[in-house]
This record gives sequence, structure tokens and C-alpha cells, in this order.
Amino acid sequence: MSEGARHANSRPQGSRIDPYFDQYAERARGMVASEIRALFAVTARPEIVSLAGGSPYVTALPLDVVGNMVGQLITERGSVALQYCTAQGDTGLREKICEVMSLEGIRAHPDDVVVTVGSQQALDLITRIFVDPGDVVLAEAPSYVGALGSFAAYQAEVVHVAMDDNGLIPEALEQAIQRLTAAGRRIKFLYTVPNYQNPAGVTLAAERRPRILEICQAAGLLIIEDNPYGLLGFDGDPIRALRADDPKGVVYLGTFSKTFAPGVRVGWAAAPPAIRDKLVLAAESAVLCHSSFSQLVVREYLATQPWREQVKDFREIYRQRRDALLDALSAQMPDGCRWTTPAGGFYVWLQLPEGINSKAMLPRAVSSRVAYVPGTGFYADGDGTDHLRLSYCFPPPDRIREGVRRLASVIEAEIDLCTTFGAMPPHGRAGPETPGPGDL
Amino acid sequence: MSEGARHANSRPQGSRIDPYFDQYAERARGMVASEIRALFAVTARPEIVSLAGGSPYVTALPLDVVGNMVGQLITERGSVALQYCTAQGDTGLREKICEVMSLEGIRAHPDDVVVTVGSQQALDLITRIFVDPGDVVLAEAPSYVGALGSFAAYQAEVVHVAMDDNGLIPEALEQAIQRLTAAGRRIKFLYTVPNYQNPAGVTLAAERRPRILEICQAAGLLIIEDNPYGLLGFDGDPIRALRADDPKGVVYLGTFSKTFAPGVRVGWAAAPPAIRDKLVLAAESAVLCHSSFSQLVVREYLATQPWREQVKDFREIYRQRRDALLDALSAQMPDGCRWTTPAGGFYVWLQLPEGINSKAMLPRAVSSRVAYVPGTGFYADGDGTDHLRLSYCFPPPDRIREGVRRLASVIEAEIDLCTTFGAMPPHGRAGPETPGPGDL
Repeated sequence: MSEGARHANSRPQGSRIDPYFDQYAERARGMVASEIRALFAVTARPEIVSLAGGSPYVTALPLDVVGNMVGQLITERGSVALQYCTAQGDTGLREKICEVMSLEGIRAHPDDVVVTVGSQQALDLITRIFVDPGDVVLAEAPSYVGALGSFAAYQAEVVHVAMDDNGLIPEALEQAIQRLTAAGRRIKFLYTVPNYQNPAGVTLAAERRPRILEICQAAGLLIIEDNPYGLLGFDGDPIRALRADDPKGVVYLGTFSKTFAPGVRVGWAAAPPAIRDKLVLAAESAVLCHSSFSQLVVREYLATQPWREQVKDFREIYRQRRDALLDALSAQMPDGCRWTTPAGGFYVWLQLPEGINSKAMLPRAVSSRVAYVPGTGFYADGDGTDHLRLSYCFPPPDRIREGVRRLASVIEAEIDLCTTFGAMPPHGRAGPETPGPGDL
Repeated sequence: MSEGARHANSRPQGSRIDPYFDQYAERARGMVASEIRALFAVTARPEIVSLAGGSPYVTALPLDVVGNMVGQLITERGSVALQYCTAQGDTGLREKICEVMSLEGIRAHPDDVVVTVGSQQALDLITRIFVDPGDVVLAEAPSYVGALGSFAAYQAEVVHVAMDDNGLIPEALEQAIQRLTAAGRRIKFLYTVPNYQNPAGVTLAAERRPRILEICQAAGLLIIEDNPYGLLGFDGDPIRALRADDPKGVVYLGTFSKTFAPGVRVGWAAAPPAIRDKLVLAAESAVLCHSSFSQLVVREYLATQPWREQVKDFREIYRQRRDALLDALSAQMPDGCRWTTPAGGFYVWLQLPEGINSKAMLPRAVSSRVAYVPGTGFYADGDGTDHLRLSYCFPPPDRIREGVRRLASVIEAEIDLCTTFGAMPPHGRAGPETPGPGDL
């Protein structure tokens, strides 16, 4: 059953105290704040080591240089930077975006690109133009919480497809398509984060990629390739994008949030012409146009600053932090814990020993001054109770090690409790748990 | 019949050449580019006097001062300005927004405010949380084209309510509610631009305001008060907002696009708590969060710059341009033309003599190097063929006068044609015609 449908039928949220309760659209019934949201507010406290948030380490940017660049931009071209622009986005920026995508083997024209308010808006617009209530979206198990939020907002039913350490499993995809098609369901697209996946940290193996494309082509199924971390691989050159080998069947989503700064909210979609046209119209009704200011700042940054060197610096910082996290996990985690080994990006996905519930454990972890995101946030169907996501992007290595020490103690205490009293019952509602923008 | 329904049933747009044609959501069928859009691209040429676009005159800002301010902000607080923030928006900015709204008699708490990507996003989110396909939205006749675009994207049926020179007519509102309620229709809200309306340039009279509130309260009908031009009145103090007298029944939408700069895309909604909560969740699924960067720039601008003086300067510039337009219209327009007299804002709404079609005339106007927006863009139901919107916000007075000279010649030629050959048949599809962000 879909998220929207589930909430609407069995758990109407809200209250008769709200005079507009009966007035909301059907889709709004699924819009409920996560019960763990309040807890996440606490994790901003300095005494807590947050391994929850996916905030890039923007402090590594040369802020004075960027400040000068931005100041000069306004002084010299403020009458453009402060004005409206087109809904498709600044042409010069779209040219630069094509250069960036070429690093992953994509040959695109600026006309193919729509600039969006972060890649989140691209997800929202794609879902808006494709998804009617009850339509199926295929997504990895687990999948990015922000994408699940967009799919839920349009009352899609998310069907998860199994992954392993080599990413999405082609046979599982094939079976899901067959099963759903046989059941008469309308599948609108496959949503995938092929590189350094959020939250699982795994990467789709090179040998699986042609097979995934083939399966989707055979089924006439569009692929949404979300690649925020593509340039943040720790080994060798960037991985060739799926879109590089199937520009007609893949909509590619990119962002400058991880290679430059999330605060400018500049992402993009590269799409086949017909879909591109719909995206532009949808963007126009959603926000009229993106910020010229943000777009010109990014364009100027790419044109005048050594951004490739900066990305190398980011990679080195994140590699050190990943190493710190993996070493600490190996040294500290009790038996029965398993975790992934990311070759890039921000995240490690950790499986808890049998019987330990990551959501039930979170308040105790926060009491012990460490935070993570419980696995249930990354499933639309309530799965993930035995997993949690650890982010190594923001805290420095020493803090990461301290965080893992604290987390290990918490898990050990849970194991003791579990051994003494038996497994904790799962509790709380299932479904995407949006911990808030800072934690994604 | 609703926009969405009309397009879906009788005019499927797109082509079988588009391999995804059968895959789009129902709502996407109404997303079609206006046939006049191509024409508007031409109006950016320097030889054309564009009285079409609603672009504020941002060149009047002290760009060097703003540039320095922004540069310093990044240098000193870049690690916050370039990072993610919360979906509700920066707290300091929301405090400043409450100060701004207090100029219109609104007493609001920063908690009541959600920062949005321009007020267009506020319109989108409000519609997203309230409107199911086929629900009715009441709007003035004519109404803002961008709002009509948002309503159409969620398959609302827009029912227009008559205005006169004193704004929305209370009796017409009352009758519309009665008629629709009797017909069993679900009306979700009244959308109104009470001050210096876009496109009509009229203002809701003070004596009508309590009556409008009373009618909506009696019907349990939410009011969406969109007030982008509220501080740009040419006479006396800002007009008291509807929300000032009914904070529970009115969602107020504001923007810094006209008092500072549209390029930062900072708008807001001030809403009752339950609606505010839904808006925050909807914003999160739409864009994760707004740009910290843009928000801090606006906050800094309000905190450190003489922004009230700047608004006075803007008012003076726009007043001169309005005067230039009105004087030129009085001097040049042929008999049979009528137009409104705006006391603020950006727009004059002009009625053509009987039998002249503003859309059919547009190509000839552009050939004569003058542009406007045909009236049909401001109706969801195909009305407005005998009207057009003139904007005086961007071109300097001399250009405005030249533009009116050219327009008067075009209209005279149309009258001659009409006298010789009879009235032109209306042509083209009805419905919101989105001329593109620069022209709104």
C-alpha cells in the first residue's frame, strides 16, 4: 500500500483542533513530522557527536576568496544577478554543468539541462510530472530519505529493490518489474543513487550497469540517476554515469551541494527534450525561476576558481574521515555488527546485532552524546529497524572516533539488555522519517 | 471545468514522438507552453519597448554597497551561509519579516513564518496542501498568471469573482460561494491580491475589507492574501493587511522581490500554526530547504542597510513611471480604450475598444516594437481577450512614452481594420498563458 494511502486510511494525522483539518488535500495527510525530529534538534548541541547529518564540510572552502568573488559579482553584474531569470536557468551555468557532467562520460547540451533548487527540487518536479496517486516508483532498499519524501508527497507507492555490496541487484529489479507488471501496476521510474549510495554507501558495480540499463530499456522504464557524490570517489577517476550510455532513457540529477556548497541550493536535471520541457513548465509553476544570484555565483565559481582542486581537497578530507570511521568501527564495535565500506561519498550503513532496534536505541544514544539516523527513515515500508546510517562528512576524525566509542558502548548496553530481557518490540509508525534538512 | 480536466479530456498536448507521452501524470497534461511564449523571447531585444515584463528596477539599488555587504557576509559567516538550514527558514530573517509585516498592521511571531523560494513557492505549497483535483479556488477576475499556473498544476478549478475599481466585489464573492456550495463543490480558498493588483492595478477599498473577511469567516473559507506590492503604494502609509484583522483565517504571502531584489528568490508565508506545520513539511519535500545564502543576504540587508529609504526611492521611481504611462495613455490612446489608475505597484489594465483582440494584436504590436501581456493570461477560463496588461516598472519614462505612442498606433490600425472587416474572431486556446518568469 502506498504511503499516502496508508496514512489516509488507517492513521489520519492532525487534530480536530485544527480548523482546516477537513480541508487539506489527500496528499497532505501523509505529511506528518517524524517523531524523531525533536530528537534531532538536540543533536546540534556541541557536546553531542553527530554522525547523523549529511552536511558537507563547507568550512574547507576559501571563504575570503569566495566572499571577494561574490562581492565583485554583485558590484559589477548586480542588475542581472538580482533580477528574475528564465525557469530553465542561466545559460552560462548550464554550459558549465555540461562540462562537469563530461567528467562522468556524459555528452549533453546546455539545452538538455534544467537548473533546480538543489537536486531535491529536481526529484520533486520529476515526481510531479510522472506520478499519479498509487503509481509505483522503484527504489533501492534502502533509499535516500529526501527522495522518499518527494515520492510520498505525490502519493507514489515505493517498492524497494534489493541491493548488496555491489549495489542494485539486476535479478531483483527484473523480478520486481515482472511481479508488478503482472499485477497490473503502473511503474513510473526506477530511482537509483548508483555511486556511494545514501544511506548504504555502496556503489553499483561496473559489470551490473549494462544489465540494469538493458532491463529498464526492455521494460520501457525511465531511470532517475541521482548522483550527488559522483565526484567524491576516493579511488581513481569518476565512475561513468548511467546516462552516458543511455541519454534517452535516463534523467540525470546533479548538485553543487557537495562539490561547492549546499547553501546556494543549485542542482540540476539533464533530461531528454520532452521531459525537459515538462520540467521547465513544472519549475515555473513551483518557483517561477531559480535564484539568478545563486546561479551566477556558482557559474562564477566554476569559471574563475580552481574548483577541481577544491573537489580533490574535499575528497581527501572525506577519505580521512571515512578511514577514521572504519578504523574506529573495526576497533570498537561489538560482535554481531556489520557495516559497508564506502569508496566515496559520506555514509556508512551499519547493521545491528539481532534484536536491537535502531530507533528505540536513539534516545539512549543521544543521552550518551552520539547521534545517527535510524534505518527506518530510508524505507517506505517500515523496514530498516536493524540498521542505522553513520555520516563521516562533517565531524573531524577525532570526533568521529569519540562518537564511535560512545556508540559502541550504547550498542553493548543494548545487547546486554536484549540478552537479559529479550528483543525489544519494534515501535512507532513505519514510513519515511524525515529528520530535517540538516540531517539528510 | 478545471484546467487540468479540460486539457485531459479534450486537448491532450504532446506527441507520440515523445516516448514518455503515456507515462506522464494526469496533472502534467495541463503543463503546456503558451503559444505566445516564443513571442516574448523577442521582447528582450533592445529595439522593443517592453511594457510586458514585471521586472523590478533593481538597477536603482546601490550595487557596490550591496556587493560589499554580501562579500563580507561570506568571508565572515560563510560556513553558515553556504550550509543547509531548516525548511522553515532562518530565524533571524523570520524576525525581520515580522518587522516588515508590522508596517501593515500584522502582529506575527517568527514561528508563524515560513520562508519560501519567492512567494511563488508559497502559492505552490499552499495549493499542494489544500487542493485535490477538481477542488475550487476563488480568484479575482482577472488574477495573477503565476498563481493560476500553480492552481492548474494541482488541477484546481479556478472560479473568477468580479472586481471593479474598488477591488473584489463582496456581493459577487457571496454569490459565487452560495452558487458553488449549492452545487456541492468544495471551495478551498479565496486567492486575492488586495493591493495594486496584478494585473488590474486596483486596490480593495477599505470599506469592503471587513465585509470580505466576514463573508469568508461565515463560509469557513480561508483567504490567501498575496501582497507583493503592499509597500509600493504612492499615497500615504501602507494599507492595513487583511491578515491584521483575521490572523486565523488569512494566510499572508510576502516577498522581497519588489522591495529588494527578485534574484534572491526570498518570499514567505505567514500562516496559522496548523497550516504552517504543513507548509514546512511540504517545503521540505519540495526543496529540502531554502538557500541559507539568499536568506542571510536579505537578513543582512534589512539589518544593516537603510532599506526603508530604498523602498521610498523605489516608490518614487515607480510613481514617476506610472505618471508617465497614465499621461501618455490620456494623450495618445484612441477613443474606446479604458484603463485603471493604480495607486501603487507596477500595472495598468487596459480595455480595448469593442472587437479588438489583444492576443491577435500582439504580433503586430511586437512588429511595431512594443510589447504587453494579453489579458487572456490572467483568466483561467479564456476570458480577457479585450484586455491587456501594461507594466511601467522597468522602462524609464521616455521609453514608456515611446511605447505608448507605438501601442496607440497599433490599436488605431486595429480599429481601422475592425471597422473595415468586422471584429476579429478570437483564436488560440483558452487558459493561463504563462509568458515566462521575466514577464510576470
